Amino acid sequence: MSNEQLDSLREELDQVNLDILSLINKRGHLVKQIGEIKHKQGMNRFDPVRERKMLNDLLKHNDGPFEYSTIQHLFKEIFKMGLELQEDDHSKALLV
Amino acid sequence: MSNEQLDSLREELDQVNLDILSLINKRGHLVKQIGEIKHKQGMNRFDPVRERKMLNDLLKHNDGPFEYSTIQHLFKEIFKMGLELQEDDHSKALLV
Repeated sequence: MSNEQLDSLREELDQVNLDILSLINKRGHLVKQIGEIKHKQGMNRFDPVRERKMLNDLLKHNDGPFEYSTIQHLFKEIFKMGLELQEDDHSKALLV
Repeated sequence: MSNEQLDSLREELDQVNLDILSLINKRGHLVKQIGEIKHKQGMNRFDPVRERKMLNDLLKHNDGPFEYSTIQHLFKEIFKMGLELQEDDHSKALLV
């Protein structure tokens, strides 16, 4: 019985992993588009005020089980991935 | 025009952030349930074979823009969050 339950929870977890992957990549595409607009307008890629606003939004909506400090740490990693993606694009553009 | 476009992309990004948050927390609840079953059965919390299987699944489904190495790094962080959540539960249980 418990093994069936374990298998079914694991299947659900596998699906959640793929859903997270899909959203992370969707986020990557959005960040690239935002980066292109900001680049054209000569705006700085990194905007600490905007980052703070996004973190505050997450704090407001976090209902656990993870502590907000853990969520904040994870999202700072996700934001960094976005910035690095934009840097890659610009270094490639410079090579053309 | 570009500013409207920027605002609309940022709104979409805000929603994606909240969707990721919600899935991360859903994952946390699932991991806790799995941890309880494994604990009852005297199984080890950390299972490197299962972790490798989850990473392979993600590799198979990753269609960018992020490189797989970046995705792997992020998910190792997410897996660690899950393990730490289970550790918290067990240390609390010991205090009762």
